[in-house]
Amino acid sequence: MNVSLTSKIVAEMLGTMVLVLMGCGSAVIAGADGTTGVGLLGISFAFGLSVVAMAYAIGHISGCHINPAISVAMVVAGRMKAKEAAFYIVAQIIGAIIGAGILYVLVTNQIAGFNMKPYALGSNGWGTGYLGEYNTLAAFVAEFIFTFIFLFVILGSTSTKNINGGFAGLAIGLSLTLIHIVGIKITGVSVNPARSIGPALFAGGAAISQLWLFIVAPVLGGIAAAFIHGLLIENPKSFRD
Amino acid sequence: MNVSLTSKIVAEMLGTMVLVLMGCGSAVIAGADGTTGVGLLGISFAFGLSVVAMAYAIGHISGCHINPAISVAMVVAGRMKAKEAAFYIVAQIIGAIIGAGILYVLVTNQIAGFNMKPYALGSNGWGTGYLGEYNTLAAFVAEFIFTFIFLFVILGSTSTKNINGGFAGLAIGLSLTLIHIVGIKITGVSVNPARSIGPALFAGGAAISQLWLFIVAPVLGGIAAAFIHGLLIENPKSFRD
Amino acid sequence: MNVSLTSKIVAEMLGTMVLVLMGCGSAVIAGADGTTGVGLLGISFAFGLSVVAMAYAIGHISGCHINPAISVAMVVAGRMKAKEAAFYIVAQIIGAIIGAGILYVLVTNQIAGFNMKPYALGSNGWGTGYLGEYNTLAAFVAEFIFTFIFLFVILGSTSTKNINGGFAGLAIGLSLTLIHIVGIKITGVSVNPARSIGPALFAGGAAISQLWLFIVAPVLGGIAAAFIHGLLIENPKSFRD
Amino acid sequence: MNVSLTSKIVAEMLGTMVLVLMGCGSAVIAGADGTTGVGLLGISFAFGLSVVAMAYAIGHISGCHINPAISVAMVVAGRMKAKEAAFYIVAQIIGAIIGAGILYVLVTNQIAGFNMKPYALGSNGWGTGYLGEYNTLAAFVAEFIFTFIFLFVILGSTSTKNINGGFAGLAIGLSLTLIHIVGIKITGVSVNPARSIGPALFAGGAAISQLWLFIVAPVLGGIAAAFIHGLLIENPKSFRD
Repeated sequence: MNVSLTSKIVAEMLGTMVLVLMGCGSAVIAGADGTTGVGLLGISFAFGLSVVAMAYAIGHISGCHINPAISVAMVVAGRMKAKEAAFYIVAQIIGAIIGAGILYVLVTNQIAGFNMKPYALGSNGWGTGYLGEYNTLAAFVAEFIFTFIFLFVILGSTSTKNINGGFAGLAIGLSLTLIHIVGIKITGVSVNPARSIGPALFAGGAAISQLWLFIVAPVLGGIAAAFIHGLLIENPKSFRD
Repeated sequence: MNVSLTSKIVAEMLGTMVLVLMGCGSAVIAGADGTTGVGLLGISFAFGLSVVAMAYAIGHISGCHINPAISVAMVVAGRMKAKEAAFYIVAQIIGAIIGAGILYVLVTNQIAGFNMKPYALGSNGWGTGYLGEYNTLAAFVAEFIFTFIFLFVILGSTSTKNINGGFAGLAIGLSLTLIHIVGIKITGVSVNPARSIGPALFAGGAAISQLWLFIVAPVLGGIAAAFIHGLLIENPKSFRD
Repeated sequence: MNVSLTSKIVAEMLGTMVLVLMGCGSAVIAGADGTTGVGLLGISFAFGLSVVAMAYAIGHISGCHINPAISVAMVVAGRMKAKEAAFYIVAQIIGAIIGAGILYVLVTNQIAGFNMKPYALGSNGWGTGYLGEYNTLAAFVAEFIFTFIFLFVILGSTSTKNINGGFAGLAIGLSLTLIHIVGIKITGVSVNPARSIGPALFAGGAAISQLWLFIVAPVLGGIAAAFIHGLLIENPKSFRD
Repeated sequence: MNVSLTSKIVAEMLGTMVLVLMGCGSAVIAGADGTTGVGLLGISFAFGLSVVAMAYAIGHISGCHINPAISVAMVVAGRMKAKEAAFYIVAQIIGAIIGAGILYVLVTNQIAGFNMKPYALGSNGWGTGYLGEYNTLAAFVAEFIFTFIFLFVILGSTSTKNINGGFAGLAIGLSLTLIHIVGIKITGVSVNPARSIGPALFAGGAAISQLWLFIVAPVLGGIAAAFIHGLLIENPKSFRD
């Protein structure tokens, strides 16, 4: 199907807006406590189901990356042109900022008022004062490995060799739920630079100064997945072929 | 497939009955506390799985709108005639009232008796005394945006350009789960005028006087989604085509 | 595909064994408390995912009824012969007893020992001392309506007119999850005479004396669904056709 | 499709790494408490969604066994050659050790430090001091029956006679979620020798000395499923054919 670049860019922008508004919104509005709120499991489903919803809503339009690490990995895997990826990434970041902005409007209209704390609006982070209090090495390893796994699922489930491609949206979304179930206490889970940039711009402080890790680690993890998937899984030179 | 209007109307009525009975019933019977009840996450799954169940039960009969905001948006999107939508909407509202009525029968037959509180039977609302206590602006923005997102998923996943249409029921239902995970504390989440009308008729009071927002905001959000989806995603005049 | 009756009977027996062992086991072993156990939501998923798992494991063999109320409704709907249904129902009840028996072996091998309480092993019931303490009318209405809804999903999603039939296993299983989310506090949710008979034989007492309701109400609910679905949805004489 | 053995081995290794890192990681990092952590339900989804994710990522490459009990059962069922299964099993065990190793790196980089307790890193076990404190018989029966059920779902949903094979990944993954919902309190749930070996090598102590059960019971359960499924379901000599 021939889809215009306008359609793709609007789809990526709206999709990333939904991911940030709903994923971060689940933590900020509904709460990480499992008794009075939706709990860590509810937050994990919010991020994952945002991807499931968007995958079937805009997957046929733009491929539903809604994540710069995915667009970069797709270029490395030879499935996308760098120029188009650049348009995608700009749209994703704008969408993430809009999503965080809508969330800001919602939470500041509580009757009791809203107190802007460090790492507000679902910002990613790590270290003393951030959830499970993991150090920088753990945060980097976690974001690298989790993005590697995420891209590994994406590249495999959307491979032209995979006859069950219709299930990719479910598999990819639920793998993001999985990653959040495991990793929220380490970094809040990014695996997506745009998802980190949006809330950080409103939260400021450490959320900004720690932003580098949520750009570098996911992008490197995605590139590693594209290389290893291509070399060892998709097109290996086998010792027994 | 040629389906009679009678089939469609009965399907819409029963489907909306199920949505209201089961969605609102999860909150009223099973409880929003995550330790002793099903929690906010359980309620979110109840609403979403009602749609998943009905989508595959009656989707091939009526399209499974079970929501006046969807029927109105489908008219705006040019996928349905206004006259048929009117029949649908009447059936949806009747079904919602029946669903709330069955729920009323169940909860009033607890041995300890039943105490009708404000916003009973899962009624939507906002402001002082309603869950997270958000103001009218937040409630309106939330219902508008959430219905926009809901319709965005519906219009995209059921587009004739989408080859994975069989997954639409899952994607749409799980997106309603997602919206509830995020939004219950603001308004209880409507995005569906019929779902608000049913319980409000039994609850009375503020549930009735606040009903206007749960009719206006979802319908406007749905119309906005139909316009933007049509203009920018489905059939854009691209600057580069 | 031509499948032997032996295959079908073994499949129904094993499938019902799995449903009872895993569904009831989730409540008995893992616990209904959402903080230390899997909670009501976890139990709801256990029953529903048992059906999802079995639907794709044996659906192509026997149709995966694993529930006498379904087999009876299929006879009423003209989709199955009464004689075959009789074989199915016997196999389902035997399977349910085996499932409850395995669960009995597991829980009585706790090191601290096992204290057989009323309604043990996940037995259904109602009234004073049973969860939310609902009266007989509520219990009957709940089981009737929930089985009606369950069969409504089954009949619609497996209709030959439904082109998305592959999703029926998911839709049906998740609708059983939905029904449990809403109804556990009323009766523990049966909607399946075999599921009630199995644990009751081990629990004895009120679980036995209340067994009649979990046979009568689900069977009547299923028959009602078969009639209404056939008359109004599948083959209506429309006033406008 | 012709896939090289290298691809299959790498896929099995990475897939088992993901299963152990994410499944065990959910328990160790996110926590079994439903209020402050993801709870038993969250852990159950982590194991199951690992399989869902990998099934659609590598199912078309290696069949996604990521479990020696499955590979052995596939040999017994005549669907795989013993020699290839041997390669698979070695790759699975290596992958599981890598997964546990990455988890070790993550948890030892908490700022507060990490205290290695018995059954650390999500190790399986039973008896006094292990969760619900079940005895050896219960542990053996549970692992045998649960693996039997798991393989029963796998063999049925991937049968060439099953026209809904695309759903197998979902059904199999969600059946692993189901098994965890029920069984975590008994043994932590293995049903997979590789998944038990990985963490045990780091945890030492009882996790090592109890490892035999998590090799013997799952393998026997898988073999039993292959026999019974083949004789009674897939190709029965019926008394009425």
